[in-house]
Amino acid sequence: MPILEVHLLSGRPDEVKSELVRELTDAVHRTLGSAPEAIQVLLTEYQDGSWNVAGEPLTLGKAAARD
Amino acid sequence: MPILEVHLLSGRPDEVKSELVRELTDAVHRTLGSAPEAIQVLLTEYQDGSWNVAGEPLTLGKAAARD
Amino acid sequence: MPILEVHLLSGRPDEVKSELVRELTDAVHRTLGSAPEAIQVLLTEYQDGSWNVAGEPLTLGKAAARD
Amino acid sequence: MPILEVHLLSGRPDEVKSELVRELTDAVHRTLGSAPEAIQVLLTEYQDGSWNVAGEPLTLGKAAARD
Amino acid sequence: MPILEVHLLSGRPDEVKSELVRELTDAVHRTLGSAPEAIQVLLTEYQDGSWNVAGEPLTLGKAAARD
Amino acid sequence: MPILEVHLLSGRPDEVKSELVRELTDAVHRTLGSAPEAIQVLLTEYQDGSWNVAGEPLTLGKAAARD
Repeated sequence: MPILEVHLLSGRPDEVKSELVRELTDAVHRTLGSAPEAIQVLLTEYQDGSWNVAGEPLTLGKAAARD
Repeated sequence: MPILEVHLLSGRPDEVKSELVRELTDAVHRTLGSAPEAIQVLLTEYQDGSWNVAGEPLTLGKAAARD
Repeated sequence: MPILEVHLLSGRPDEVKSELVRELTDAVHRTLGSAPEAIQVLLTEYQDGSWNVAGEPLTLGKAAARD
Repeated sequence: MPILEVHLLSGRPDEVKSELVRELTDAVHRTLGSAPEAIQVLLTEYQDGSWNVAGEPLTLGKAAARD
Repeated sequence: MPILEVHLLSGRPDEVKSELVRELTDAVHRTLGSAPEAIQVLLTEYQDGSWNVAGEPLTLGKAAARD
Repeated sequence: MPILEVHLLSGRPDEVKSELVRELTDAVHRTLGSAPEAIQVLLTEYQDGSWNVAGEPLTLGKAAARD
């Protein structure tokens, strides 16, 4: 019955997010043995200014290695 | 900079949880391209009685297909 | 001082959400005895594609029994 | 498919928490029409010192009207 | 590596939110000794009707002492 | 009415956590103008193995600059 809340910066293409969801679901299924229909993945996307590191807003692409 | 909050029932072996963490981290790295050191996975485990479905507590193993 | 974070699919009418909030507040007041003004209910609504089960997006109405 | 995360102070009897879970589940079922088995209620209890108001820890019973 | 999730009513000016983020980051750095770049602050803003107290929606400014 | 959920590694002394709570409350009061009694700070501490970066558990002290 695992629930994954995924926090990420806004701005990724839909197909990338769909692929992320499928891969995370597979990872839970493979390692915990949960039935796929029991695995929930909830995405929360943060707009510019809502995600901050070291007191400054993070923007997708500005800090490639971290975002 | 993705953060994954994983909610799961308490009671899984440590090595299973470690494997879960590694697989989830890989899935984020592969699909979003984030550097591994920018990916955080936080596990929250729920004791008996804290996770409820249909008003009744869920217990690991009792409902194999779902937990 | 209970706080309820309610995660639900986007798309319900305002009056339904208001009724949900009132009923949840009453339920906490009745069972825990908390003063109503100490009970907070926070709604988070998920747009299409943000709530996924079995690796696929859930849409309000598509899966009537579950949403 | 609603998920309720309930944050409350630690220290309530098990039967009170069970009753709370059932009442919350009923409230969601009545107002949103969700099937009971699609409604999840997750309880998170906070020990002394972990829940703070006005910079000071809140303790169950110390502030009857609020807890 | 602390993460702060800040829940607040929508409607504050950007410069107020930026100042809030910087002050919170400083507070964590001063008291825990964490490096600033290890401190993350995530803001979640609630629109009208999403934040409820005593079963009624809270609006910024309507209840000055509380919002 | 702001709520701060603070996620941090387990193992800090109580007086450090109390000081953190007071400083965070002050920061919210100063920047948003909220009354102190309307500001809630909830601490969630993560035991060894529950907080992971790059797929590996983070331990307080092991990675001084980050924890």
